[in-house]
Amino acid sequence: MKLVTFDNGRIGIVDGDRVIDVSDLAGVQPGIWPPVGMVRLIADWKERGPTLLDALAHREGRPLADVRLEAPVQWPNKVIAFPANYHAHIDEMKQGGASGVISTFKASGQGFFLKANSSLSGPADDIMLPPLAGREIHHECELGIVIGKRGRAATRAESRDYVFGFTCLLDMVVRGKEERVMRKSFDTFCPTGPWITTADEIADFDNIEMRLFVNGEERQRATTKNLIVDVPEMIAMSSAVMTLEPGDIIASGTPAGVGPVEDGDVLEIVIDGVGSMELHVRQGEVGDHPVWDEAKAGLAV
Amino acid sequence: MKLVTFDNGRIGIVDGDRVIDVSDLAGVQPGIWPPVGMVRLIADWKERGPTLLDALAHREGRPLADVRLEAPVQWPNKVIAFPANYHAHIDEMKQGGASGVISTFKASGQGFFLKANSSLSGPADDIMLPPLAGREIHHECELGIVIGKRGRAATRAESRDYVFGFTCLLDMVVRGKEERVMRKSFDTFCPTGPWITTADEIADFDNIEMRLFVNGEERQRATTKNLIVDVPEMIAMSSAVMTLEPGDIIASGTPAGVGPVEDGDVLEIVIDGVGSMELHVRQGEVGDHPVWDEAKAGLAV
Repeated sequence: MKLVTFDNGRIGIVDGDRVIDVSDLAGVQPGIWPPVGMVRLIADWKERGPTLLDALAHREGRPLADVRLEAPVQWPNKVIAFPANYHAHIDEMKQGGASGVISTFKASGQGFFLKANSSLSGPADDIMLPPLAGREIHHECELGIVIGKRGRAATRAESRDYVFGFTCLLDMVVRGKEERVMRKSFDTFCPTGPWITTADEIADFDNIEMRLFVNGEERQRATTKNLIVDVPEMIAMSSAVMTLEPGDIIASGTPAGVGPVEDGDVLEIVIDGVGSMELHVRQGEVGDHPVWDEAKAGLAV
Repeated sequence: MKLVTFDNGRIGIVDGDRVIDVSDLAGVQPGIWPPVGMVRLIADWKERGPTLLDALAHREGRPLADVRLEAPVQWPNKVIAFPANYHAHIDEMKQGGASGVISTFKASGQGFFLKANSSLSGPADDIMLPPLAGREIHHECELGIVIGKRGRAATRAESRDYVFGFTCLLDMVVRGKEERVMRKSFDTFCPTGPWITTADEIADFDNIEMRLFVNGEERQRATTKNLIVDVPEMIAMSSAVMTLEPGDIIASGTPAGVGPVEDGDVLEIVIDGVGSMELHVRQGEVGDHPVWDEAKAGLAV
């Protein structure tokens, strides 16, 4: 099943080029704040999932083109992200091919970090670049894993039970030496969507192929086969530290091929069996602060 | 006003040694999941605040000792944290006085990071230490700033309008070289409380004194006068990057005096004009994972 959030918090199922509004069956009040509708639906999935399946068979849909798709999950407990999770990407960063920065790939980079919930955006939202003079802002093409179950200390064997579904995810980042979380948490720096494809539609979690195109040209291509920390281990590692909650998102790390984006670029992310979406990059006016200048000058705190 | 969350999501006002249940006036349904009651109340404060004041004057309270206080804010949009925000603490870390780790205080540490929402715990919850052999887990005594208003790109002059209130906050951390976010995001590694003291009760944000005691002995003492990035600048810097939401928490960074805690320790945090709370440290059994061993051995990812 393909689940979307649309038109200010409505919940829908996508069926071909149509969307079936199931906000009522999902128990979601459109427009509520904070926007936790999808999070609640995922938590209630055992109870509500079957009635949604029934609606898919019996309800009329509207053209998908007539609605505005939003980030499927808008206010999760957390967005977990794994850095440097493909060997080929680590190699390119060490060689300085992308921006000359290798410091984030030492042992100190081990583990995971977080992206701000407020960085989540959807398929209809532009990626807004902050006006940081002289800085490169890179695309990172990633598989987003949506957690379906509350729990701590999941084993590899249990990990599949924790996966509710998958979504396309871009992990946008300002290259530099500042705290990685800050460089990755600008508003619109975590586009997700266009929907959540439930896990039952993906036969093999270890063989999911993804590609990223910039202005029509392929720049990134990878399969989850080549992950260093694979899907079960990402769930085991993060749940060793933190209780996972339904709706949590894991960004699984970027493959090689990262590069700078600029105003007017069009990014297309395609994940086989999951979905695809096209995103427009725009230069914004908000986001500068002296913290970016100081680091550029190489000053310590 | 002192606002608490208690007994599975109820909202109350503390008046001396009594708590007045105002869940109904706050528009909060106790027990709802996800637990966003306080976040919603803060967003609706202009409308609901006056009716709460009225309840404080007219309603009977229950003894505070009869209820179980919880983390005041349990599911914010984000928990923002500022590292290395007092010169004396940077000095002690550089000298290796605490654990010999200085890498987090280079320019690469500039800016802010995030702690997981799931690390939030309350005044009645124990701090559970993960069983990481040979690792020190440190206390960091911090002022928690609770955001009251949605916004981006706040100026220093506007920043006071963004402060809803303050709370005591401990930023617990496993010392080491892994990603800082992971070392700081274990469940119970962000005790907060015992309540939110609204900003109107704090005359001068730049002169808030705080102390931390371990087993009755004073270990940390500081005032916001000595912050490197002060309260207005924390709001300016974080809102340059991210839209701040009502209920967001900013951990303002630790002063000098950090040190290891162990099973059985009792921590007391006291922030003048804000509140105080006593927390018990217990050795837990959950939390180990090979990622901690690899880093200890100095292996790169």
